[in-house]
Amino acid sequence: MKNDPKINSWKAKWHEIIYEADTRGGKIFDLILIVAIIFSIILVMLESVKELDAKYHDFFNISEWVITIFFTIEYILRIITVKKPWQYIFSFYGIIDLLSTIPKYLSLFIGGAHAMVALRALRLLRIFRILKLGRFVGATDNLSKALKASRFRIFVFISAVLILCVIIGTMMYLIEGDPSGFTSIPRSIYWAIVTLTTVGYGDIAPQTAFGQLLASLVMILGYGIIAIPTGIVGAEMAKEKGHKIHLNTNSCPNCSAGNHRDDARNCYKCGEKL
Amino acid sequence: MKNDPKINSWKAKWHEIIYEADTRGGKIFDLILIVAIIFSIILVMLESVKELDAKYHDFFNISEWVITIFFTIEYILRIITVKKPWQYIFSFYGIIDLLSTIPKYLSLFIGGAHAMVALRALRLLRIFRILKLGRFVGATDNLSKALKASRFRIFVFISAVLILCVIIGTMMYLIEGDPSGFTSIPRSIYWAIVTLTTVGYGDIAPQTAFGQLLASLVMILGYGIIAIPTGIVGAEMAKEKGHKIHLNTNSCPNCSAGNHRDDARNCYKCGEKL
Amino acid sequence: MKNDPKINSWKAKWHEIIYEADTRGGKIFDLILIVAIIFSIILVMLESVKELDAKYHDFFNISEWVITIFFTIEYILRIITVKKPWQYIFSFYGIIDLLSTIPKYLSLFIGGAHAMVALRALRLLRIFRILKLGRFVGATDNLSKALKASRFRIFVFISAVLILCVIIGTMMYLIEGDPSGFTSIPRSIYWAIVTLTTVGYGDIAPQTAFGQLLASLVMILGYGIIAIPTGIVGAEMAKEKGHKIHLNTNSCPNCSAGNHRDDARNCYKCGEKL
Amino acid sequence: MKNDPKINSWKAKWHEIIYEADTRGGKIFDLILIVAIIFSIILVMLESVKELDAKYHDFFNISEWVITIFFTIEYILRIITVKKPWQYIFSFYGIIDLLSTIPKYLSLFIGGAHAMVALRALRLLRIFRILKLGRFVGATDNLSKALKASRFRIFVFISAVLILCVIIGTMMYLIEGDPSGFTSIPRSIYWAIVTLTTVGYGDIAPQTAFGQLLASLVMILGYGIIAIPTGIVGAEMAKEKGHKIHLNTNSCPNCSAGNHRDDARNCYKCGEKL
Repeated sequence: MKNDPKINSWKAKWHEIIYEADTRGGKIFDLILIVAIIFSIILVMLESVKELDAKYHDFFNISEWVITIFFTIEYILRIITVKKPWQYIFSFYGIIDLLSTIPKYLSLFIGGAHAMVALRALRLLRIFRILKLGRFVGATDNLSKALKASRFRIFVFISAVLILCVIIGTMMYLIEGDPSGFTSIPRSIYWAIVTLTTVGYGDIAPQTAFGQLLASLVMILGYGIIAIPTGIVGAEMAKEKGHKIHLNTNSCPNCSAGNHRDDARNCYKCGEKL
Repeated sequence: MKNDPKINSWKAKWHEIIYEADTRGGKIFDLILIVAIIFSIILVMLESVKELDAKYHDFFNISEWVITIFFTIEYILRIITVKKPWQYIFSFYGIIDLLSTIPKYLSLFIGGAHAMVALRALRLLRIFRILKLGRFVGATDNLSKALKASRFRIFVFISAVLILCVIIGTMMYLIEGDPSGFTSIPRSIYWAIVTLTTVGYGDIAPQTAFGQLLASLVMILGYGIIAIPTGIVGAEMAKEKGHKIHLNTNSCPNCSAGNHRDDARNCYKCGEKL
Repeated sequence: MKNDPKINSWKAKWHEIIYEADTRGGKIFDLILIVAIIFSIILVMLESVKELDAKYHDFFNISEWVITIFFTIEYILRIITVKKPWQYIFSFYGIIDLLSTIPKYLSLFIGGAHAMVALRALRLLRIFRILKLGRFVGATDNLSKALKASRFRIFVFISAVLILCVIIGTMMYLIEGDPSGFTSIPRSIYWAIVTLTTVGYGDIAPQTAFGQLLASLVMILGYGIIAIPTGIVGAEMAKEKGHKIHLNTNSCPNCSAGNHRDDARNCYKCGEKL
Repeated sequence: MKNDPKINSWKAKWHEIIYEADTRGGKIFDLILIVAIIFSIILVMLESVKELDAKYHDFFNISEWVITIFFTIEYILRIITVKKPWQYIFSFYGIIDLLSTIPKYLSLFIGGAHAMVALRALRLLRIFRILKLGRFVGATDNLSKALKASRFRIFVFISAVLILCVIIGTMMYLIEGDPSGFTSIPRSIYWAIVTLTTVGYGDIAPQTAFGQLLASLVMILGYGIIAIPTGIVGAEMAKEKGHKIHLNTNSCPNCSAGNHRDDARNCYKCGEKL
């Protein structure tokens, strides 16, 4: 039965519609899916507003079920039509699809499970995939190459910032302590991150003169090192600008002209062999 | 009557004064208009300060009427002297001109309508038009070209930031919930935007350890991706810098020297045909 | 007496010491002055801390008088030794020197006048002059040239930001109004500036859903346009990078090779006249 | 005994393990050390959380002693195996190693000494040394060269920002005073730094109209000058981009063509000697 040509062609057709976007059916399916995802997320958002939920509870409940059933059908179709179902099920998108479908069913048995529908927000990531936004950002240009090339450097930069935050946070915990809200080291590290990134909530703020002095240093540091990520990307971008011909500092033995091309054999000025 | 040459020449003269800035009359009109707009906005500002309004209510009221009548005359003149009145009336500036004129008249009949005089602030945009500031910023240079060319990319960047904020906001709603002020998903998304853009009001702030951990990640992310808009504009600007001669990676069949100009016919080193 | 050579040479000597820094005496004077300025400012700072003032009031008072007398002598010497005393008195630094000297004398007659000693902080600007820090920043390099060249553009950018803040502030005043702290339009504009520049105190924050939506837009806008000042300076810096040889898009009539130097007369490939 | 070859070879072996990372033993030691440092810091962090300390006090106490003894052994081994022990003891890392080891011993005699274990966070800096992260960031590329070359300029920039903050803070102290929380000049300077760096806690915020006006100026200033550190690094990076051939502004005596290479002997256009 698995090799029944009719079923196979039916599968192939649905595979094309669901997984590809070149046919008319595929495009319509993608459009419906995007609309459904956005609609489902707006639904979850509005449902979380207590006043709205009190008023339109039934409408939200019914809509939730409609969306859930639509997503269930989509999920089942994806499993059926794909060649390696397990690979899809355990893929990143497969897990998100499952997580955004089951909470409504679980809520029939378990009380709090309904809150998990909020996980559906992760389905927004599929929009990136459908619209291939990543590709638009420009696989061909300098910026994305520069970002890729400087990945490791950005990771080191972030690590350094984190280590700095651990040290600063610990120092502030010793200086300020409980009265100003620095109740534990993790909380002080949280404060250090809030300050260094110039977010500055103000829920925790130094009260003592010495604490404010240290905080000032952290802020100026944070203000200064914001130039570094820009610099990292910029440095990488400068590198990418076409091949450059490097000039060396050798001078011609005959006329002592300098700045020869690294691979020059003759002096550009007098023709003397280098 | 419409073709009466006297009226037509009168119209043409006023059109020149109101819509153009090359004649002496046009320049004086523009100057008076800028002064009137700025004066009217300062008036609206001061009027909104309760203590001042209590003291100088009559002065504000009379000044408002003077400004309103001046703007009414200007609005009527604009309609009369322009060739296609409807096009002006439904244009962006036409609607703003109307909205900044009628509130005072409406306030005679409707109570709260007076507050709408604040819409007059939109007339400030006309200053850009009169001073042609947009042109000064430099239609001819790299920056504005780069900004235009990267419009779509900036839009994708902002979309990505927004999707990220929806996902982060939803997760924080599940983690923190009501006690910390994350009362609904839209409010949590608002928090995510406040945090990611490093504004950080502190009216809503995570209280649980796990919430603060996630918030820290969001802050570091926000601190890092601020390099991207700068990078986008910078990448575009680098492109604009004159035509560049691209070197390819082919090598000479004779001496195997590389980095030839894309359109080179002979090897720059040994003269061999490529 | 004015032309008495002895007095003149005495004047010239002190002029050299006070206004110049090339001789040993001049360098020592500058050093003493910097130390005195920094000491006087630290004094004013500590005096403003109530607990310290209560304890060491007498010490602060005496030190203030010592500093005041030293500054008085310096001020008088500057007037005597300079050729055009009135030009110095009404110069920027002359006024600052006077303002940082007289408050202590005034405090003998007028009660609150003593607080004005804080104006002495402005004398810190003289440190820039003495150390010629401005010169170190590099009159010869790209950055300062770029900053100067983009002065007007930065002014237009700031004007545009301010106009935007007026419009946003006015809209928020209409949307939020008194309950959320947007008590007047100037206060709302203050909020708009606090938000757009990503400072985000949180003393005024939107409470309604619509207000928070608008605030989110303002934040994302502020986050995005931070790339513009960097871009302005960067664009100017790119211009400054030496003379560039522009290549045009004409093609050779013989071999149709492109990218000729703008002023080329012969084709770089086949030697054909262009 | 000091020259006993057995002991010396034993010393040399341990020196290799502890101070170097090329042998297998050295690598394992480094790995264990990093794990121990990270574990000890996580321990200190969790211990500072009161709820956890109440529950697991004994576990924390025992773990602290284990870590302390491990660090003590490491410290003693470092002193024994190094050739110049005093140089290590008074080196930056030597002092940190001591400070992160003794607090537990001190806590046996002095009450509050235990809090000082938090100083152990400074040992995180050793991770940079072990992983040679500094080297990865790229000693060979433009960015680090640019950062080094612009060290002095960044120092001048920070000094200027600080002087600005002193002046702004003093002015705000005179304008706002006690009621808004500007209780002393140092505190007002702290506010100025919080505002200029766009951190914006909101624990101190101007209340008067004039104070808010000045604050707005400070914010816009802070928003604008963030381009300067980026610009400083960028300018330096632009300089580093390979040798550039400078063109001068002399003109050819025959055809008056300009923009000759600085070292050109003949006109590129007509061949006339320059």
